[in-house]
Amino acid sequence: MEMVVRVRVPASSANLGPGYDVFSVALENPHLEVYAEAVEGEGVKIVNIGEYAGEVTDDPERHAGARAAHKLLSDRMPSKGVLIRVNVSIPPRKGLGLSGAEAAGAVYAVNHLYKLGLTANELIQYAAYAEPGGHLDNVTASLLGGFTISMRDSLLGGMAFKTLRPPDDLGLTVIIPDVHKTSTEDARKAVPDQVSRQQLVEAVARSSLATASLALSDVDLLFRCVLYDPYVELARADAGVYGHGVDRHALLTEKLELYKRYHVVETISGAGPSRLLWYKLSENSGGAGTRPVDRAVEMIGENLASAGYKISRIYHTRPSAMGCQLY
Amino acid sequence: MEMVVRVRVPASSANLGPGYDVFSVALENPHLEVYAEAVEGEGVKIVNIGEYAGEVTDDPERHAGARAAHKLLSDRMPSKGVLIRVNVSIPPRKGLGLSGAEAAGAVYAVNHLYKLGLTANELIQYAAYAEPGGHLDNVTASLLGGFTISMRDSLLGGMAFKTLRPPDDLGLTVIIPDVHKTSTEDARKAVPDQVSRQQLVEAVARSSLATASLALSDVDLLFRCVLYDPYVELARADAGVYGHGVDRHALLTEKLELYKRYHVVETISGAGPSRLLWYKLSENSGGAGTRPVDRAVEMIGENLASAGYKISRIYHTRPSAMGCQLY
Repeated sequence: MEMVVRVRVPASSANLGPGYDVFSVALENPHLEVYAEAVEGEGVKIVNIGEYAGEVTDDPERHAGARAAHKLLSDRMPSKGVLIRVNVSIPPRKGLGLSGAEAAGAVYAVNHLYKLGLTANELIQYAAYAEPGGHLDNVTASLLGGFTISMRDSLLGGMAFKTLRPPDDLGLTVIIPDVHKTSTEDARKAVPDQVSRQQLVEAVARSSLATASLALSDVDLLFRCVLYDPYVELARADAGVYGHGVDRHALLTEKLELYKRYHVVETISGAGPSRLLWYKLSENSGGAGTRPVDRAVEMIGENLASAGYKISRIYHTRPSAMGCQLY
Repeated sequence: MEMVVRVRVPASSANLGPGYDVFSVALENPHLEVYAEAVEGEGVKIVNIGEYAGEVTDDPERHAGARAAHKLLSDRMPSKGVLIRVNVSIPPRKGLGLSGAEAAGAVYAVNHLYKLGLTANELIQYAAYAEPGGHLDNVTASLLGGFTISMRDSLLGGMAFKTLRPPDDLGLTVIIPDVHKTSTEDARKAVPDQVSRQQLVEAVARSSLATASLALSDVDLLFRCVLYDPYVELARADAGVYGHGVDRHALLTEKLELYKRYHVVETISGAGPSRLLWYKLSENSGGAGTRPVDRAVEMIGENLASAGYKISRIYHTRPSAMGCQLY
């Protein structure tokens, strides 16, 4: 038996406009590297290394990867232990699915380390076990790659998911502002308990049409559908989750300008504060600094500056067609 | 110029579980035949013939086909008139999209009669003009065929739609109970104004996964997704829209039994009271009367009988890949 496995795990951006708790996309960058090593005795030990190691816990009771791996081992290999070393290169608490990636990577690694033969469905369920509210979106994308749709089935029980291959012409840029989010839990509380019928109909229409657009590679319609979320993004903006001064009016104004001037779509990544920019690679083939997406980044930087924030990091990336991979 | 056109128009079944006001499917049967003839002078005249002619209006102020055609002519050919003859073979007020089919057929016919060169988008908008609340679902399916997804875009204005080819292995059966629906408007009023966040998330997940399942021809997952609507069907059942005694408990119990015993999915067609049964043709290849779908029809007949109703008509049909067609 191989006693060490190494896994590359993509970050993910969840919600994607109207698909709150349902849609996600795996990103080529940033990503995690997870190393899992069989050790004597029971239990899970975490060692964080790399850029953001100082900002995340190594307490196995609170680390998502440790919690997911512990649950998996308790169920399947109760006498076994594992040491998990994580190269933390996804910035924490920025809406890029770090905890989902930790959990996905840990479960995927332990599955290979101990040859457990888990199905995709089981991998997702174990990884989601460590997520707040058990939400499936980030872990599904980090495990399987591509665009993912996942649901818990309240009628029959269990869960279901599908992955869709990213369009070839789609570029993504992640912008990380220096806005401090208190917690994903607080961001979840800002979402109203009740929705109007009109909001429901539009969310269902936009998410279903976005799915059809992905399946049929209609990037223009995809952009139009994900541009607007009638529910979660606006409520969170007004609750200050994305920063002071980034209320629904400011957010919508910025989105519409980016879309109309540059054909760039902006969505909030997960619970924020990071922004995900969507654009056609074929419309952004000029030199860096001169492309429409560069102008879009500039505009967002100016708007953040006028609210007292700045951009702390930018990733020019693409959807990752792959999820967790051994390497 | 050809002075008469003849159009075959499929009936449609809207909502399809979680896709209220968004999803629809065109049916091979029943269908309408619409004949449009150029006449001297302005205005639209309606003549109904055929099985259900006695049950529908020929008042051009109230007939959906006349209203849509009148709007179209007023905008594009104000000096022209048309005589529209409709062979009414879609039962009225049963949730099979008769008014949408009338409007779709009239607009499609006038477009050809007067060589107006309308786009699909324009055809849909003119046909939807005559629908209550301007809803797009039935007219989109009757015009374009297949499974359709349509939305009104509250951010950018206008509308958007996609069609998906029906899976080859999908059979549909329409059951029409002798339940009298007061009106589609009353059925719309039974839908609550507010939805819980949980219902929204599940409706978005189910409709998006159903779309992906259609695109990827995964009929089993399609069935699981459309089986349950957490919102509209249950509220309407409790409001008595589908008949006395058909409350949410009765409806859900029936759905689950049909699904578990026969792998047959039951959805309410549009605002009801008709039911749409979904099944795999490959699982229903036996002689008529002995197939799982026949057992499903029997069970529904027994449940209706115990509530004092009976089945007045059954169509064993399929999705129609074609929408309006000249013939």
